[in-house]
Amino acid sequence: MAVYTEVTDEALEAFLRAYDIGRMIAFRGIAEGVENSNFSLRTTTGDFILTLYEKRVDPADLPWFLGLMEHLAGQGIACPLPVRGQDGASLRLLSGRHAAITTFLPGVWPRRVRQAHCAPVGAALAGLHLAGAGYAPQRPNALGPAGWPPLLEGSRARADEVAPGLSAELDAALAAILSAWPANLPRGHIHADLFPDNVFFLEGRLSGLIDFYFAATDLLAYDLAVCLNAWCFEPDFAFNVTKARALLRAYDAARPLDAAERAALPVLCQGAALRFLLTRLYDWLHTPADAFVTRKNPLDYLRRLRFHLAARGPDAYGV
Amino acid sequence: MAVYTEVTDEALEAFLRAYDIGRMIAFRGIAEGVENSNFSLRTTTGDFILTLYEKRVDPADLPWFLGLMEHLAGQGIACPLPVRGQDGASLRLLSGRHAAITTFLPGVWPRRVRQAHCAPVGAALAGLHLAGAGYAPQRPNALGPAGWPPLLEGSRARADEVAPGLSAELDAALAAILSAWPANLPRGHIHADLFPDNVFFLEGRLSGLIDFYFAATDLLAYDLAVCLNAWCFEPDFAFNVTKARALLRAYDAARPLDAAERAALPVLCQGAALRFLLTRLYDWLHTPADAFVTRKNPLDYLRRLRFHLAARGPDAYGV
Repeated sequence: MAVYTEVTDEALEAFLRAYDIGRMIAFRGIAEGVENSNFSLRTTTGDFILTLYEKRVDPADLPWFLGLMEHLAGQGIACPLPVRGQDGASLRLLSGRHAAITTFLPGVWPRRVRQAHCAPVGAALAGLHLAGAGYAPQRPNALGPAGWPPLLEGSRARADEVAPGLSAELDAALAAILSAWPANLPRGHIHADLFPDNVFFLEGRLSGLIDFYFAATDLLAYDLAVCLNAWCFEPDFAFNVTKARALLRAYDAARPLDAAERAALPVLCQGAALRFLLTRLYDWLHTPADAFVTRKNPLDYLRRLRFHLAARGPDAYGV
Repeated sequence: MAVYTEVTDEALEAFLRAYDIGRMIAFRGIAEGVENSNFSLRTTTGDFILTLYEKRVDPADLPWFLGLMEHLAGQGIACPLPVRGQDGASLRLLSGRHAAITTFLPGVWPRRVRQAHCAPVGAALAGLHLAGAGYAPQRPNALGPAGWPPLLEGSRARADEVAPGLSAELDAALAAILSAWPANLPRGHIHADLFPDNVFFLEGRLSGLIDFYFAATDLLAYDLAVCLNAWCFEPDFAFNVTKARALLRAYDAARPLDAAERAALPVLCQGAALRFLLTRLYDWLHTPADAFVTRKNPLDYLRRLRFHLAARGPDAYGV
């Protein structure tokens, strides 16, 4: 859960004096979010989110993330807009952390994914990709294919503690995926973590996309593969092709996939499943048992990975 | 941190149909709170807190707690007001838990206690005690003196794992406190847990009291002793008599302490320190190391207990 750093009321008041957003009315820690400390902040002028960036986020990346959100919001994407202070800066220090205030988005993230959520997610992802085209700075994806071998290296010695044979299975999968990885698909800025808890809905309509702190410049269709993993498996790990079809069709209607992207869907989905499997495995093996956070089971993604490895082509995803 | 039970958006929408508070706009888990799951809920008519009562709260007590809050709010105390549904009930089921909606209070709890906070806390506690007089139902204090021997019993065998000699020191302190415990002081409804994270301030003024789920019917001056423990020790465990004097004087100005209450302050403070020491010790020894919650160090209260055991009289508290 997500308040790692406490903020004293005096420090907060001093921090707010750098902004023209009125006087503080309420300030509460938010339980959602894993990487950073998030607070809901109400002032006399409205509602905001205050984020303190914790150690997993590289401060050097923060201007890129905040710049991307500002660009996207300016293009009409429903994402948090960083609020600039009187000095024009949207990033400053608070309680020893880099911190930013963003606008508050209405809506509720779906605790249980229904088919009706999937087309709006596909359409919003395409909208994000199109709107991102005008943002010139690039950020390499540290958790893209080049990042997977060192991640596996960091867990290999103890991977079989999690499941017998896991180490060999991951070695084989990683080799197969990297050798088949498509090099020349359309690139752009991707969200890279568009899970249900990062998408808000309000009265049946998608009302916001949040948490851009894994965003990077990479294959656009890889972002779609992340979403297929995140939105289209049932709690029993069965793949729901109806949800996948809805998500893909809505994406394709707004940003048509080319033939190479379509053909690459299985390997992109394999890569996306492997990426979440590897980070979860690393955290599982390296998080102290008494740590603050709930560890997520890496094997949830082994089930997904095996599905994608068995997929014979894009037909498996309903297209 | 405090979201133990997830609520699906469908379940929440169905739940809200029992109320006349408009349509949902936003719903976020709140990080604060340890015992229950709390969510901030915004609807088209305003802001509310949704609480799901987790296993530590006896459902049989909930009508008493909610009735007390309704009574106190009706007397002008700035505390959460339970919202009644169309059926008149303020308590119903959601996601397998008892749940209630209350009004949202503005303000921020003080992460660092300053002297200026203490008089408002004393005055608010006295106001709470006076306003509680008109609420007829009683609730015995399960964590009062009668509850301490079984609590210690549950930890005695392993207490010395936490500090050498702790078991013998607690046995001696418990015997001394129980034999000196005052039987005939003024009684009423007490908050019993008025720590800084349960008191909101806004622009220097106390704006709300929350979390009445330890409230009970007991010695009023014992509640003051809880506050002296909670508000008047510095981070290095030094007792700050200036803060204590401010808290006590403000209380006394609104509800004058009688001579017996004043004389009993040391033993009441000893009992209050022991109460938090014992529950923390029990949790420390019985919470799995990988549990969701941050365990609080019981020895923080051993330092306080020793201070109070050495106090020669109410002078030690500045009165």
